Amino acid sequence: MTWRIPTLSLALLAAGAGYAADAPNLADQYRPVAGKLIDAALADTEGYNRLAYLCYRIGNRLSGSASLEQAIAWSAEQMKAAGLSNVRVIPVKVPHWVRGAESGRIVAPLDKPLHMLGLGMSIGTPPGGITADVVAVSSFDELAGLGREKVQGKIVVYNEPYTGYGPTRVYRSSGPSRAAALGAVAALVRSATPLAMQAPHTGEMAYDNNQPKIPAAAVSLEDAMMLARLCADGVPVKVHLEMGAHMEPDADSGDVIGEIPGREKPEEIVVIGGHIDSWDVGQGAQDDGASIMACLQALALMHKLGLQPRRTIRVAFWVNEENGGRGGEAYRAFVGGQIGDHVAAIEMDGGAEAPLGFGAGGDQNSMEMLRQIGTLLERVGAGEIAGGGGGSDIAPLVRDGVPGLSELTVGAHYFDWHHSEADTLDKVSPEDFRKNMAALAVMGYVLADMPDRITAGGGGRRGQ
Amino acid sequence: MTWRIPTLSLALLAAGAGYAADAPNLADQYRPVAGKLIDAALADTEGYNRLAYLCYRIGNRLSGSASLEQAIAWSAEQMKAAGLSNVRVIPVKVPHWVRGAESGRIVAPLDKPLHMLGLGMSIGTPPGGITADVVAVSSFDELAGLGREKVQGKIVVYNEPYTGYGPTRVYRSSGPSRAAALGAVAALVRSATPLAMQAPHTGEMAYDNNQPKIPAAAVSLEDAMMLARLCADGVPVKVHLEMGAHMEPDADSGDVIGEIPGREKPEEIVVIGGHIDSWDVGQGAQDDGASIMACLQALALMHKLGLQPRRTIRVAFWVNEENGGRGGEAYRAFVGGQIGDHVAAIEMDGGAEAPLGFGAGGDQNSMEMLRQIGTLLERVGAGEIAGGGGGSDIAPLVRDGVPGLSELTVGAHYFDWHHSEADTLDKVSPEDFRKNMAALAVMGYVLADMPDRITAGGGGRRGQ
Repeated sequence: MTWRIPTLSLALLAAGAGYAADAPNLADQYRPVAGKLIDAALADTEGYNRLAYLCYRIGNRLSGSASLEQAIAWSAEQMKAAGLSNVRVIPVKVPHWVRGAESGRIVAPLDKPLHMLGLGMSIGTPPGGITADVVAVSSFDELAGLGREKVQGKIVVYNEPYTGYGPTRVYRSSGPSRAAALGAVAALVRSATPLAMQAPHTGEMAYDNNQPKIPAAAVSLEDAMMLARLCADGVPVKVHLEMGAHMEPDADSGDVIGEIPGREKPEEIVVIGGHIDSWDVGQGAQDDGASIMACLQALALMHKLGLQPRRTIRVAFWVNEENGGRGGEAYRAFVGGQIGDHVAAIEMDGGAEAPLGFGAGGDQNSMEMLRQIGTLLERVGAGEIAGGGGGSDIAPLVRDGVPGLSELTVGAHYFDWHHSEADTLDKVSPEDFRKNMAALAVMGYVLADMPDRITAGGGGRRGQ
Repeated sequence: MTWRIPTLSLALLAAGAGYAADAPNLADQYRPVAGKLIDAALADTEGYNRLAYLCYRIGNRLSGSASLEQAIAWSAEQMKAAGLSNVRVIPVKVPHWVRGAESGRIVAPLDKPLHMLGLGMSIGTPPGGITADVVAVSSFDELAGLGREKVQGKIVVYNEPYTGYGPTRVYRSSGPSRAAALGAVAALVRSATPLAMQAPHTGEMAYDNNQPKIPAAAVSLEDAMMLARLCADGVPVKVHLEMGAHMEPDADSGDVIGEIPGREKPEEIVVIGGHIDSWDVGQGAQDDGASIMACLQALALMHKLGLQPRRTIRVAFWVNEENGGRGGEAYRAFVGGQIGDHVAAIEMDGGAEAPLGFGAGGDQNSMEMLRQIGTLLERVGAGEIAGGGGGSDIAPLVRDGVPGLSELTVGAHYFDWHHSEADTLDKVSPEDFRKNMAALAVMGYVLADMPDRITAGGGGRRGQ
């Protein structure tokens, strides 16, 4: 996932009308159907088997890769096999970044492999690579303090401490250009993870167009700490870096959607989904394969149970979340002028560890309705309704007034694995996966079926 | 470290004489000096800096490598700088296994890198490597059940669950030959670790001379699980393996020792140490760099404090613990007929996480004396005196009747890092390192200074 600031804040919630006491008792009304959905989810094995296929037979799936296109075609087949209607691929042109061959070595004061992984969208090195002295900093302030004189011609190593994914990833995204602004020839960024197991974690970086573009790679926590200590001890340190990274022309790809048409208001839509693309390492199991398979299976269970909600419920596998966000934008364009019929958008992009509930932004009445639905999820530990509700794939919808929800989990180890070779199927507990499926099925079904609609924060659409 | 069965059991302790009540009150007697040693250890920074040099400037140090010889020469210098006497290198011929270039890929049903690390002492593949179908088993029984018909010509994957290092490592050490006995062409063994972070963990394997020798490598937990699931699902799986591993002629190396000569009985010796060699990945920080640096620094602190125990205290950096045990044997040979003057041998080879105390085998009176010394270590959490006391480097001494002690730690994460690229300096907490140093200093000093000697289990030397 790409981290985002919650788009609708708790402060907005407090501004809503005091409508709670009059709200219909959704919990009582939907308890029987929620029970059926949860029972079915907790007994399901098909969803995890689908996830296993995605991880073990198709593998990781970066925008532009053959495996992504294979995953898209296979996903459409799976949606059809699950009994969904109107299965289609919405065409999306995606950026096509290719890692190429890459390697790194620390060459002084001793020779050893550098545990590196090029950052997504980075340029490559010249043929033969770059060999340069290293300067290490633990913050942008420290970099600024060094100044051009000490940075010019060097490889800058960011050894920033992990203070949570949000604040730490800033070094990954903007660190390379900030180093280039002082004349650095390459940037190595300590991976944005709390766990030191010599694994580099990649992710997107973005160049400042006003600065020279320099190659940038993530390094393991261990190597960042080592390079920083050697520099601090005044030991001359040299690194050799070779990266074949480059951009190719935009590639044809697509969002995959399928639905259960609404029995009364088929034009009104609740969309639930996650992203089908992943980084080109590991298997994209927690990020975000488990999410899309849980969303699909939530609809598959409704179909098996013969449940057809009042409104249409749609599953969406958005493409290119990791390095472009083109899938979310293309979906918004696909919706076009019918945006007012999007009743809610649920995004799941924080892994499939044990679910806690949902983040949501809405007026006070909407939040009360969500809390009532939440009580139906206490059986799987997912009854919490918190603030927030954003998500990068649904951001274009939320921006235009669609109430957004994000599925929340305990997130105990998500960033241990995230964007690394260790994001593999075994990290997804089948039991937790089923609980997530249950939470998505119940929340999605009730939002699509209940007589009223929730509204976005501030009490209405912002129409911008 | 190489895991071993405790050589002296608790059962032996119970057989000792009921001498406890008459034992001198060592705790009272040594409380002042123990306090000084602990204060000095907890304030020490020199020891950790030495460890940093070993890890970051010299690096890993497999038997036969240039870095091992560099570490040996540097260690002798450090012992001299610490004020130790009779610093010398005891020559040892060590086996010289070389990993060479190696790589692996899963080539069907999809193409992806295999996270592998050749096992120590394995042969290599023929030039161009081996490509073969895979069969996966979770136990030796399952392998036997498959029989030659299903194993012949295949690569056997052991996906044994981790049930502790001792029982699990059996698959690494004897799995390759057991697969070869049924006609396998190579063996891949799930790494002996509880933590799945896509890291292969190497270690020693041993061929059965009655079976064909086949190449053998450790694989990550993730890859072992993936290969096993694909096989269980009936999906044909193929792996390509290339290993340049081979043996070279035995290399010249050595144990490094230094001492503080005893003030009254210099011929009697307490030896404390660990192993200087490591695997050829990571930095050998927890295994066993931190141990040897803590042992050295324990003596350095005694020297700084002007403490000279009644008997000689010696620090030993044994070589070739990981793949041969030649250093421990050479040390025994060096001691020769003077073995009766070895009062105690303390081995530290389980990492330097927070210390708990010592494992020891001795008669009841000896155990009571050790428990009294243990009370002096409660301040650093290291007061426990448990059974056990073996260690592969001191095994040749213990076999000939020398009381053996092993330093114990909480061992919470030791096997997460062990024998992998992640065994690096950052895993050693400076605070825990100092506590280990304190425990070694106090235990070593008191054993070398106290009027009585402890005796080995069973109440005396076994002379075999």
